[in-house]
Amino acid sequence: MRFPLADGGDGTAETLTGMFGGQLESALAHDALGRPRSARYGVLGDGRAVIDVASASGIAHLKQSELDVWSASSRGTGDLACIALREGAREILLGVGGSASVDGGLGLLSALGVRALDANGKLVPDGARGLLELARFDTSRLEPAARQARWTILCDVDAPLLGALDYAPQKGASTRDLRELERGLTNLAQLLEAQLGFFPALAGGGAAGGIPASLMALLGARCVSGIDFVLDAGGFDAALDGADLVISAEGCFDAQSLANKGPVGAARRARKRGVPTLVLAGAISGDFERANASVAALLSITQAPCSLDHARSVAADWLSRTAEQSLRVFQLGVAAAR
Amino acid sequence: MRFPLADGGDGTAETLTGMFGGQLESALAHDALGRPRSARYGVLGDGRAVIDVASASGIAHLKQSELDVWSASSRGTGDLACIALREGAREILLGVGGSASVDGGLGLLSALGVRALDANGKLVPDGARGLLELARFDTSRLEPAARQARWTILCDVDAPLLGALDYAPQKGASTRDLRELERGLTNLAQLLEAQLGFFPALAGGGAAGGIPASLMALLGARCVSGIDFVLDAGGFDAALDGADLVISAEGCFDAQSLANKGPVGAARRARKRGVPTLVLAGAISGDFERANASVAALLSITQAPCSLDHARSVAADWLSRTAEQSLRVFQLGVAAAR
Repeated sequence: MRFPLADGGDGTAETLTGMFGGQLESALAHDALGRPRSARYGVLGDGRAVIDVASASGIAHLKQSELDVWSASSRGTGDLACIALREGAREILLGVGGSASVDGGLGLLSALGVRALDANGKLVPDGARGLLELARFDTSRLEPAARQARWTILCDVDAPLLGALDYAPQKGASTRDLRELERGLTNLAQLLEAQLGFFPALAGGGAAGGIPASLMALLGARCVSGIDFVLDAGGFDAALDGADLVISAEGCFDAQSLANKGPVGAARRARKRGVPTLVLAGAISGDFERANASVAALLSITQAPCSLDHARSVAADWLSRTAEQSLRVFQLGVAAAR
Repeated sequence: MRFPLADGGDGTAETLTGMFGGQLESALAHDALGRPRSARYGVLGDGRAVIDVASASGIAHLKQSELDVWSASSRGTGDLACIALREGAREILLGVGGSASVDGGLGLLSALGVRALDANGKLVPDGARGLLELARFDTSRLEPAARQARWTILCDVDAPLLGALDYAPQKGASTRDLRELERGLTNLAQLLEAQLGFFPALAGGGAAGGIPASLMALLGARCVSGIDFVLDAGGFDAALDGADLVISAEGCFDAQSLANKGPVGAARRARKRGVPTLVLAGAISGDFERANASVAALLSITQAPCSLDHARSVAADWLSRTAEQSLRVFQLGVAAAR
């Protein structure tokens, strides 16, 4: 059987909306660079709305040349949350993953009415730039619905707030940028602790450029494992009954995959019930011994040396071919045992 | 257990020398472009010598920019045969495959003393150029040892003489070159038929740029399947006893592989004895349904989109990783059946 998988990153809103029989909506929101963009979120019909950061603020919407860690903002995700809350949502399920920003959630909070101020009481600019000047949060104009709502963050990484730095290079940060970003995130962490008594080392705080840390501190959000939430929502454990093998896939399988991303999260759950997992990936790097501690086997779908663009254009075909050939190998084992 | 595989192409001399407990020798020979090169051949100790065309005349020794189908010659292979015969060989096992030339064996024959003449009785130039001017073979100065020796050609393709054209593009021939090459090979075929009564449609004649056709006609050579010869020499059938799976590998698995190249030849033999074969390849193209009619499963070792140069530099590591991961999938099948 097929089981849709999401871990808080791209596709989380669509996946959960489908699982809960909700309704996908589109709304106008800012993209990570402040341009208008039509973005999707889900209304589950039980007072919950599901939004993923990737939908409006995702890195996948930017060209490589557009990556700008200082300007990129999570504001568009806040736009979507605002709309969902005004339409009556009482709980926001927020998938964090695939973001273009390292703004500690400043943009998202701003869209909800939180004022991020510098030492002179002026609004700080959007993006990671704002973190450097940030001196105080003014929550007096925070949307009441946002304050009253329950916020559940679906995380795909375990990193604490400063762990957001680990993901900054893939968002375009240079080595020099990293030092400044660390200063900005440290400033945010100290501010959250001083003003709100929040301890910023909580696991998950550093996902999506630090969004969860601020939401935990200012909105009382709680972080849960995105993959486990999705697996539970879809009834994964029950689906494993009688299964011989789980086959999952990931674009690039590397050290980050081993944190708690989709395929590895599913593999852990499957292994608890005695079902092994084969992961197929477009690219594989890193330590196979570590990988095999989490997934039973790991194969590449890339059929020849080629460019990344070419690989992307034929990935669906390569994935289905490799799945078929892998199953043939599995069946050879079955036949050999009989 | 490990079983060395060769099909007439690169590595055939080393492989057979090892299997028969012979001695590898080095000798100076011309490469495909006429430059001196130290090349290896094997002396088996029972009157047989084993030479592969790839050793002196191989395409692998040329840079992509050096490919020149009009100049490239099989002369170096003849150099090695001459040396082996002078040292007492009474049978030459000649592996044909991996050659850079489409010279119909003119260079090889010239090195043995055959004079390839034009209509004015002058020697034709080396390479495919010579085929266009060729009018007559003068065998009066052929080395007596070459005439008396038994010639056994180990073929990796079934193509008749004109089938050599199919492999010319990878040796650098343009579409326009192909038309001229066809004229040259047709000239050779008509000459062989007229002068010697040899019918040039025999299977295998078109391997290695047409070498076998001329050797069959002028030296009474016989063609055998290279892969089957090697499999028999190493006792492959006996090695299959008790085997659950054969794992083989090829650089690029495509329509040519399905002719009778190493992995497919081994797979056919293994299947006759009920043992399935998994082939691992650096690049895979073509029709999987046709491939699966010959090999039970086919997986790529390429771990990510990358350049061919990079893939080559890490191929050994990727091959062993993929072999291990494939066996893990096989074992999952074994476990599922129990």
